[in-house]
Amino acid sequence: MLDRKLLKSLERVVGRQYVLTQPADLLVYSYDSSTARGMPDAVVLPASTREVSAVLKLCSQHQIPFVARGAGTNLSGGAAPVHGGLVVGVSRMSKVLSIDAANQIAVVQPGVVNLQFQAMVAPHGLQFCPDPASQKVSTVGGNVAENAGGPHCLKYGVTVNHILGLTVVMPSGEVRQFGSTALDPPGYDLVGLFVGSEGTFGIATEITLKLRPLPEGTQVVVGIFDTLEASGRAVSTIIGQGIVAAALEIMDRSTMEAVEASFPSGLPTDAEAFLLIELDGLKEVLDARAERCAQICREAGARTVEIGKAPADRERLWAARKSAFGATARLSPAMLVNDATVPRTRIPEVVRQMQEIERKHRVRIAKVFHAGDGNLHSNILYDRAHPEEMERAKAASVDIFHLCASVGGTITGEHGVGSEKPEYMSLIYSPDDLAAQRKLKRLFDPAGLANPGKVLPAETETTMAGAHA
Amino acid sequence: MLDRKLLKSLERVVGRQYVLTQPADLLVYSYDSSTARGMPDAVVLPASTREVSAVLKLCSQHQIPFVARGAGTNLSGGAAPVHGGLVVGVSRMSKVLSIDAANQIAVVQPGVVNLQFQAMVAPHGLQFCPDPASQKVSTVGGNVAENAGGPHCLKYGVTVNHILGLTVVMPSGEVRQFGSTALDPPGYDLVGLFVGSEGTFGIATEITLKLRPLPEGTQVVVGIFDTLEASGRAVSTIIGQGIVAAALEIMDRSTMEAVEASFPSGLPTDAEAFLLIELDGLKEVLDARAERCAQICREAGARTVEIGKAPADRERLWAARKSAFGATARLSPAMLVNDATVPRTRIPEVVRQMQEIERKHRVRIAKVFHAGDGNLHSNILYDRAHPEEMERAKAASVDIFHLCASVGGTITGEHGVGSEKPEYMSLIYSPDDLAAQRKLKRLFDPAGLANPGKVLPAETETTMAGAHA
Repeated sequence: MLDRKLLKSLERVVGRQYVLTQPADLLVYSYDSSTARGMPDAVVLPASTREVSAVLKLCSQHQIPFVARGAGTNLSGGAAPVHGGLVVGVSRMSKVLSIDAANQIAVVQPGVVNLQFQAMVAPHGLQFCPDPASQKVSTVGGNVAENAGGPHCLKYGVTVNHILGLTVVMPSGEVRQFGSTALDPPGYDLVGLFVGSEGTFGIATEITLKLRPLPEGTQVVVGIFDTLEASGRAVSTIIGQGIVAAALEIMDRSTMEAVEASFPSGLPTDAEAFLLIELDGLKEVLDARAERCAQICREAGARTVEIGKAPADRERLWAARKSAFGATARLSPAMLVNDATVPRTRIPEVVRQMQEIERKHRVRIAKVFHAGDGNLHSNILYDRAHPEEMERAKAASVDIFHLCASVGGTITGEHGVGSEKPEYMSLIYSPDDLAAQRKLKRLFDPAGLANPGKVLPAETETTMAGAHA
Repeated sequence: MLDRKLLKSLERVVGRQYVLTQPADLLVYSYDSSTARGMPDAVVLPASTREVSAVLKLCSQHQIPFVARGAGTNLSGGAAPVHGGLVVGVSRMSKVLSIDAANQIAVVQPGVVNLQFQAMVAPHGLQFCPDPASQKVSTVGGNVAENAGGPHCLKYGVTVNHILGLTVVMPSGEVRQFGSTALDPPGYDLVGLFVGSEGTFGIATEITLKLRPLPEGTQVVVGIFDTLEASGRAVSTIIGQGIVAAALEIMDRSTMEAVEASFPSGLPTDAEAFLLIELDGLKEVLDARAERCAQICREAGARTVEIGKAPADRERLWAARKSAFGATARLSPAMLVNDATVPRTRIPEVVRQMQEIERKHRVRIAKVFHAGDGNLHSNILYDRAHPEEMERAKAASVDIFHLCASVGGTITGEHGVGSEKPEYMSLIYSPDDLAAQRKLKRLFDPAGLANPGKVLPAETETTMAGAHA
């Protein structure tokens, strides 16, 4: 519980109604979409850079940790106040400050919802490329914190490639400008460093985005395969022929079953793989290009291939893929979401070894791949009511981390490290590499108040590892 | 002069013939392609990460500053040893270590020449997108240090968007791994931070690159205009219609005259602007797309428009643009190269005000624009033999920095800050922002040995500015 004087000071900054301390309110802010939990001492909802700055100055004076929060769709614990303290919600900072269509630049506050923003720029023929599965709900601020990906990031790059400048409130409360509206500003790239830092460096309060023209046309090709390997072969051939798809998505049998159970889409539940290929670009060539991808699917052994040209067909084909996460979540009382990434060509062997992990730990793993960039979402199903089952799910997840790291992959593609994966950072980085990252954290946040417990393993852990080594 | 014992130690590390101390040799390494100069105390040419590490450990022990050097094509002084010390040349580290065509990834040493590397991956149907004007000579290591751009970076992004991982020798001599072969590795983005740090954080000794399919086809459209404004209107219309050109390049009358004087290409020397539009992509649509761009040029008032479809025609049209820099350099005994960047739509007013700057300082400025991303190369002609003329050129350059900063632009697009522009960083960044950048520098290089005098203004300057404020 925060002391009365601090609460009064916070109320003076943001207004009394925007400081929440009732248990029912705190509960809402105690979790995100991961398994991480932590009860905050209070929640504040500032409305401006100035207010965020004043709030963080108070945190600094009273040595209270703080966690910035957008929509709380985070899948690795990034928005959960696992060490208590203050949650700084950005829901009131949801204005689009400017859209400069001629220069293809916009400035937004962090609480703007991704899809609502897309709807605002679409009339100008423009888009903000990152399109995480959560985009209906998730905020641009959250996308920046996690360096969010999405199906279309295969072609257009993840969030960091679309951010030009940031106004950041540092943990001290000081306000800094990183980057600018110009391409490749001089000096050190603080924008690139801040994007993906998961709220551990401070809070971005104004975000300058790079927009891109909407494609003229889009077509979708879906192939159904009897083996995951065959769908992987099709992906390799498409990429090998130099076709730059806008998205390349695979679902396995468990995921298709889940989709059919919840949102019947006519998917065959006896097939092993669903491959969706989205092509975008100039209308004139999409027909030929889609036919070429369909042919590649057939040659790789697809059982059926369908091309969606009309908007309604495209939407129907995407609907199955887009409902995968929600449908899978309905299959069992809980699921552990893993998003390890591997070099694209290693996918087939990783899939084979994952099947062994399923057997070994007696768990069911529903798999959805951003296959183009090697990002594997393995959703491990379990029942929280059976602690033993949860332990097996966690053990399977750890085995997947080790497996992916062993083939040159990494422990997260787009969900971040959060509070769920810091202990696995040592699979990717040496103690010295982690020490370098820790020094960066200290530079931005000497007192360790910004989102503690996230990204980096606790110092004692590395020290102990060092002592054992 | 370095002490005898240190030289002996360096010889033991790299071999006697790879430690240069003769004045004639040192002279070669005393400058780069900018106006910066500084005589090194010695030059070493290591052959491996291990040797670079051993060299930097010796530098650290003896507190000797060092400057990494690729091909020395730097235009802002980044490779010039302005504070003396050791030049660490990477010319012997020019191996391509691996090309993984299926995963579109390659690993190279820093001394690989950009264009030679392109020739090695082209048979796989792949390219490394950054294509700086210096690509025939400049090294991938230098491209990383400067976060190099190039005509095609309009569509594909600058160097940082194409680097996945780095092996870096820190100024202490320790070897660190930044990033990995996976997209978006977990933790803080040290790759993004290192790329563009101009040799002030350490030396990259292995570079993991992201490759991209070569486009299927290419066409070039060239329009000749009677005013720079008209060419700017054509650029705005092309972008406004959502056409994503691979390159959008403008040359002004002075540059065209220079090209005609040195490499006669049939350019009219009474026109004011040459606009080159490159379109790449699928063969089937290039004809229609090129015709649309030609029509836009005509409607914007182009005097003549030519479309280059055949490879020979495309090369001829590009040849004029690619010879611009060399041709302009022949116009006068020296030139000051400025590469400020402005928001694209501000180009016409910036061009008008530049003409006033030419009159005010009685200088001639030949202008070449990467017009798509607002990067203006203003080549200010002067004669080094007339110090007064040089002073006027410098004054014009400073006015251009101020002008570009005043319209929301910046002091460098792709040439870096080097030793020529640190004092203008304060046009873009506040003293607090610069202090944050300085803290990053200290984190990587506490002793200040890595390429001193570059990127950030000398500390006394900011302190004095602070004292005056």
